[in-house]
Amino acid sequence: MAEVKKPKIEQAFLTGSSPEIRVPFKAVTLSNGEKLLLSTVEGAEPAAKEQPKLRAPWINARVGDKHRTQVDYAKAGIITPEMEYAAIRESAAVGPDAAFSPEDVRAELAAGHAVLPCNRMHPECEPMVIGKRFAVKVNANIGASALSSGFDEEIAKLRLALKHGADTIMDLSAGVNNLMQIREAILRASPVPIGTVPVYEALDRAHGDPSLLTWEFFRQVVIDQAKQGVDYFTIHAGLTQDLLPFAAKRTMGIVSRGGSIMASAMLRQQAENLAYAHFDELLEICREYDVALSLGDGLRPGGLCDACDEAQYGELKNIGKLALRCREAGVQCFIEGPGHVPLNRVFENQDLEDEYCSKAPFYTLGPLVCDIAPGYDHITSAIGGSLIAWRGTAMLCYVTPAEHLALPKPEDVKVGLITFKLAAHAADVAKGLPGARLRDDAMSRARVEFRWYDQFALSLDPEHAEAVWKEQMPEECAHEPSFCSMCGPRFCPMRLNRKLKAAYDVK
Amino acid sequence: MAEVKKPKIEQAFLTGSSPEIRVPFKAVTLSNGEKLLLSTVEGAEPAAKEQPKLRAPWINARVGDKHRTQVDYAKAGIITPEMEYAAIRESAAVGPDAAFSPEDVRAELAAGHAVLPCNRMHPECEPMVIGKRFAVKVNANIGASALSSGFDEEIAKLRLALKHGADTIMDLSAGVNNLMQIREAILRASPVPIGTVPVYEALDRAHGDPSLLTWEFFRQVVIDQAKQGVDYFTIHAGLTQDLLPFAAKRTMGIVSRGGSIMASAMLRQQAENLAYAHFDELLEICREYDVALSLGDGLRPGGLCDACDEAQYGELKNIGKLALRCREAGVQCFIEGPGHVPLNRVFENQDLEDEYCSKAPFYTLGPLVCDIAPGYDHITSAIGGSLIAWRGTAMLCYVTPAEHLALPKPEDVKVGLITFKLAAHAADVAKGLPGARLRDDAMSRARVEFRWYDQFALSLDPEHAEAVWKEQMPEECAHEPSFCSMCGPRFCPMRLNRKLKAAYDVK
Repeated sequence: MAEVKKPKIEQAFLTGSSPEIRVPFKAVTLSNGEKLLLSTVEGAEPAAKEQPKLRAPWINARVGDKHRTQVDYAKAGIITPEMEYAAIRESAAVGPDAAFSPEDVRAELAAGHAVLPCNRMHPECEPMVIGKRFAVKVNANIGASALSSGFDEEIAKLRLALKHGADTIMDLSAGVNNLMQIREAILRASPVPIGTVPVYEALDRAHGDPSLLTWEFFRQVVIDQAKQGVDYFTIHAGLTQDLLPFAAKRTMGIVSRGGSIMASAMLRQQAENLAYAHFDELLEICREYDVALSLGDGLRPGGLCDACDEAQYGELKNIGKLALRCREAGVQCFIEGPGHVPLNRVFENQDLEDEYCSKAPFYTLGPLVCDIAPGYDHITSAIGGSLIAWRGTAMLCYVTPAEHLALPKPEDVKVGLITFKLAAHAADVAKGLPGARLRDDAMSRARVEFRWYDQFALSLDPEHAEAVWKEQMPEECAHEPSFCSMCGPRFCPMRLNRKLKAAYDVK
Repeated sequence: MAEVKKPKIEQAFLTGSSPEIRVPFKAVTLSNGEKLLLSTVEGAEPAAKEQPKLRAPWINARVGDKHRTQVDYAKAGIITPEMEYAAIRESAAVGPDAAFSPEDVRAELAAGHAVLPCNRMHPECEPMVIGKRFAVKVNANIGASALSSGFDEEIAKLRLALKHGADTIMDLSAGVNNLMQIREAILRASPVPIGTVPVYEALDRAHGDPSLLTWEFFRQVVIDQAKQGVDYFTIHAGLTQDLLPFAAKRTMGIVSRGGSIMASAMLRQQAENLAYAHFDELLEICREYDVALSLGDGLRPGGLCDACDEAQYGELKNIGKLALRCREAGVQCFIEGPGHVPLNRVFENQDLEDEYCSKAPFYTLGPLVCDIAPGYDHITSAIGGSLIAWRGTAMLCYVTPAEHLALPKPEDVKVGLITFKLAAHAADVAKGLPGARLRDDAMSRARVEFRWYDQFALSLDPEHAEAVWKEQMPEECAHEPSFCSMCGPRFCPMRLNRKLKAAYDVK
């Protein structure tokens, strides 16, 4: 029995105009010799506890420059190494001539239609771009909490998330003592942008009491986190006092944790949203470090019953005005979106975001298209997610099977990510993104030819696919690949197809 | 510590104009006294090995009548007990005044826009209706094969599928000796319509050799299965000789097992599709027993690469003509659809089906919106499935996580069904089906009030939801439900909402 030919997966690099611009990929050589480049977010040294500081020379070369942020450079017509790096990353499948040039990235950043989150204090961050024209990105949330076990577990979740393709990661740690140390370890180990929700830590510093949550606490957290290298902040500055009565009328009220902390402080202190009131100061800090703002939707609906109401859309309008202030200040920004939305109103959410927020990139949680499937909400949200991403949403926040029930375990992180990578990919294909379908088509050819190990190499979750297959398929069938367990050995549609091609003289 | 109040789930019946028309439901009484009726397909006696023959008196009363099929009666303006039963079933949530009357069901059947599959030899079948105006239905495939273990396993899968809401079940058994006995057991135990693909058994009778597959074999199988009580047949009669060259040009060729058997016979025998050639005879048999025809898409695409091509749409046009012949003959029919289709071409498939097939109900497999997620194809297909169902597809064939890799195990059957029930439900909500959102809204209220056991009772998979929750949540929290494991005990958005309502004087 002949040894079955297996595909090879190796690390490869594409370099840009200077040797420092060196973008890692997975180079797949299938058993029939076909080659594909697949993207990776695991970094140039996936095993390293501390990632290489690839951006350090670029950052150092800019010290003292009047431009502070990627959007400053973009508006000035300057292409940074980060932009070139991100363009190569987007173009792997088909090359930059057929896909995106560094100039494309610059132009989208300058217009505010894309963001490239890369705090100057996070030199380990491999540049990537989030915007409607580019591949749909997926964010994974991790984070320690009072009920979870903390440090090592979170670093393990980070690696797991990177392995399964998280384009950015949000560290939502809160309510634990070693917040700074956890974040530090995550930042140094992460080749992808790290986002946080500063109000979580601000509440911790205010002893968990929203009535003590002052701008001073908030401001100091933002500065501390910016100095550590956090690449983007979710700030719920659009949830203003005038919207609270609309939220009060809802069935579900406020379900965003950050939004409800803000609202609680506003109620207790009878004061305007402190992030809104001090927005210009926030912009100064963000500009200093080039932290992108993810303008949070504190009023995202928590059930279909509250979707698309005055509270949600009123906040979106506010956020749109804040987005313009970000642009004027040279601060990158993107817009967070729902949440729970029925299928027939998903498009409307993207369309209104375009209208109210001047086409700043949209970053949604799902949306979840029904409320009755706890345990399966990675799926209800992937349905809404793929749909809204096809319509133009630039990044999807994953939802795990644990949503609405518990904190995600490592298996949940994995399943959530694979689910959202497939939803994002389906949207890329639907958008007609250059090269998006190469991998699907290679899969189809591998299926026709019973190249099972090639199929696994092309899968979003190769280990799982192989394990499921192996359980039913005796090993020898891999060596004589003329049938599979679905139809059994007797009649096989794939064999018929060879005869069909012969009959009609098709090669 | 007070005992936590738990919801009650009981069997209930709604009756029609005669006491024999008695439709079972699950009556849920939540812990706060709220009541909901949820549909069930487990039958009036879920535990019974042989289901009650509820239709026997109705069938007997019609002996000798000139009308043979439900569509005959519908065209004649006659409302059968089956139609009334199906209307009650569709209207449970809101009652027949707000949803569908028996006359609605009759009118949709008469127009050919709906089917009510109920072979007169399957008196155990509880009537249900499949059509664009009604709730989206889900089919589950089961079936013994040469590589699976057979009889008991299939009956167990049937019960599992019913437990998780399969509206119809296809028995795809093939390549085993006791086909007739397995089908007999399934039919007698099944309160839902049973579909088959007769060509599988025909090929078995032809010793697995497509060159020996004659009309005589085929005809006899169709008669035998009709006599047993099969409620609908998938017949690949639209795959005509002129389409084979288009199929030969494809990357994936023919991936439908039934379609490839047909094509193989056509090639070997240099003859036209025997189901096409003998379609009138098929119609006579179907009319005699009132078997509905599910006009199969033997040329459904097996990958995005072959979607929406001349082969697929050419066959759909053929099928449209056959659908008209069904209507003329008084035979109920519906139309099978893809398969693998990119997200941006999903709507087009429904729209063309409406156009070519005179709005006969569409019944699709997915569609799967990408090819790179083996092990997760229940999700890729639920995305396309919810989208096409929102556009008007009447029934979705489930896809399990085992798709493309192995035969589904019981856990796969369950996960596939829950996934498709949620996709169908999302479409029902999006279609604005009367009462579709009652269950979601009850869930939202239960979430706000930490009524965990009510949440489980409202879930598509109560056992799983409760198990995930329990694993992280200490039992006592169920008794003092003021926080959950997601945010922990310290700050809770739900508690804030009570204050918010108080502050703005909202009840």
